Amino acid sequence: MRVKYRKGAPEYLQANTHIVVENPAEYKGRWSERFGNNHPIHIEVGCGKGAFIVGMAAKNPEINYIAIDLQLSVLSYALDLAIEADLPNVQMILVNGSALSEYFEDGEVDQVYLNFSDPWPKTRHEKRRLTYKSFLETYEKILKPNGELHFKTDNRGLFEYSLVSITNYGMKLKQVWLDLHADEEFAAQNVMTEYEKKFSEKGQVIYRLEAQFVTN
Amino acid sequence: MRVKYRKGAPEYLQANTHIVVENPAEYKGRWSERFGNNHPIHIEVGCGKGAFIVGMAAKNPEINYIAIDLQLSVLSYALDLAIEADLPNVQMILVNGSALSEYFEDGEVDQVYLNFSDPWPKTRHEKRRLTYKSFLETYEKILKPNGELHFKTDNRGLFEYSLVSITNYGMKLKQVWLDLHADEEFAAQNVMTEYEKKFSEKGQVIYRLEAQFVTN
Repeated sequence: MRVKYRKGAPEYLQANTHIVVENPAEYKGRWSERFGNNHPIHIEVGCGKGAFIVGMAAKNPEINYIAIDLQLSVLSYALDLAIEADLPNVQMILVNGSALSEYFEDGEVDQVYLNFSDPWPKTRHEKRRLTYKSFLETYEKILKPNGELHFKTDNRGLFEYSLVSITNYGMKLKQVWLDLHADEEFAAQNVMTEYEKKFSEKGQVIYRLEAQFVTN
Repeated sequence: MRVKYRKGAPEYLQANTHIVVENPAEYKGRWSERFGNNHPIHIEVGCGKGAFIVGMAAKNPEINYIAIDLQLSVLSYALDLAIEADLPNVQMILVNGSALSEYFEDGEVDQVYLNFSDPWPKTRHEKRRLTYKSFLETYEKILKPNGELHFKTDNRGLFEYSLVSITNYGMKLKQVWLDLHADEEFAAQNVMTEYEKKFSEKGQVIYRLEAQFVTN
C-alpha cells in the first residue's frame, strides 16, 4: 500500500511508543514480556491501515498481534485505529519484512498473516513479493514448528505465483478459497481489510489460502 | 459428463474397433505396437465428447493420444469426431479411470489430462473425484518418472479441492491459471473442450494447473 506522506507522522509515532515499539530488536525473544502474558503471537507483514489487525485483536483477546509495515505514514493510520480501539494486545513495529529475524527469535511467532500484499507484477521484482522463497525462509525461521501462513489478496497474478511458490517450498496447503466471499461460513467470521471491503463490494473476487510449514 | 443413451451406440463402437480398442488389457505394455511407433502416449481420463483429444491429436501428430471414458454413449460422440478427423494417433477405450493400471504398464504413459471432470461436490463422494489421492496413485503408477498431470475445469470447488489434494500428495505445482482465457499467450494454443467453449463464451472463469510427480 502506498500513501502520501502524512504531515507530523514521525512525531505522532514517537508520541505513542506504548503501541509503536521504538527499538523492536530489544524485544527479540522477549515479546511475551512486552505483552505481559504468554499468549500466542500473530504478526501481519504489511499491515496497511490496520483494519485487519486491530479488528482481529478486538475479536481475539487471547492472542497478541504485532502489526508490521515499513512505511511510516501507512503505520500512522494503523496507529489511529489502535489508539481508538485501545487494546492491550496490539503492538506495531516500523520495519522491513525481510529483516524479521532481527526482531523475532526462532519459533517465537505462532502465525503470519499477509493481506493484499504488493503484487510486484514484473518478473524482475519477483524477489520483493512477500511469498518469494527468501521471505518464506524468514517466516519459517521465526515461526514455531508447523506454524501457519494465512494469505489473502484480490490479485490473481500474485495468488497464482504464491500457490506455486508456497507449495514448491514444501509447505502444506491446508485450504484454498478462490472466491472467499462466496463462502458464507467463512465470510461470517472474516475480518476485512479496508481494501478488501471496497473491492469485494465491487464484485472483485478475493483469494485466500492457509498453508503450514512442515517439520521434516 | 452425462448424456442420454444413444441408440445404436454399442453396435457403433463395435463397428469401429480400429479406433475403440476392444480388449484394452491386451495392450498393457504394448501400446506402442498398437500405434506402430514409439511416440509419447498422452491419455485423457474422462474424454467426454472428444473435442479436446481429437483437437490435440490433430495438432500434435508426434504424440499418441488415448481417450478414456466409462460411458458408452459419451464415447460414441467422441468416436464421431475421431472418425471425421481420421487420425492415426487417436485411440479410445471404454473403461473406468480407477482401473487404469489394468490397461497400462508402469511408466507407459507420458502425460495425463483431466478436463472438466465431474466435481462430485458432496463430501461423501470425495473418493470419486479424479484428483482424489487414490486416482493420483494410479496416475503416478502408469506415468513415467516425473510425469505430468494437466487439469482444467470451471468448477471452483473442484479446483480448490484439487490444489490441496495434488500438493498434499507431494506433487510439484508447475503453473496455475485462475483465469485461463485471460492469458492470451496460452489461449492462442489452447485446445478447448465443447464445454469450455460454451462456458468461457458466457464469461465463466476457467481454472487450469500443471503438476508433476516427483521422484524421491
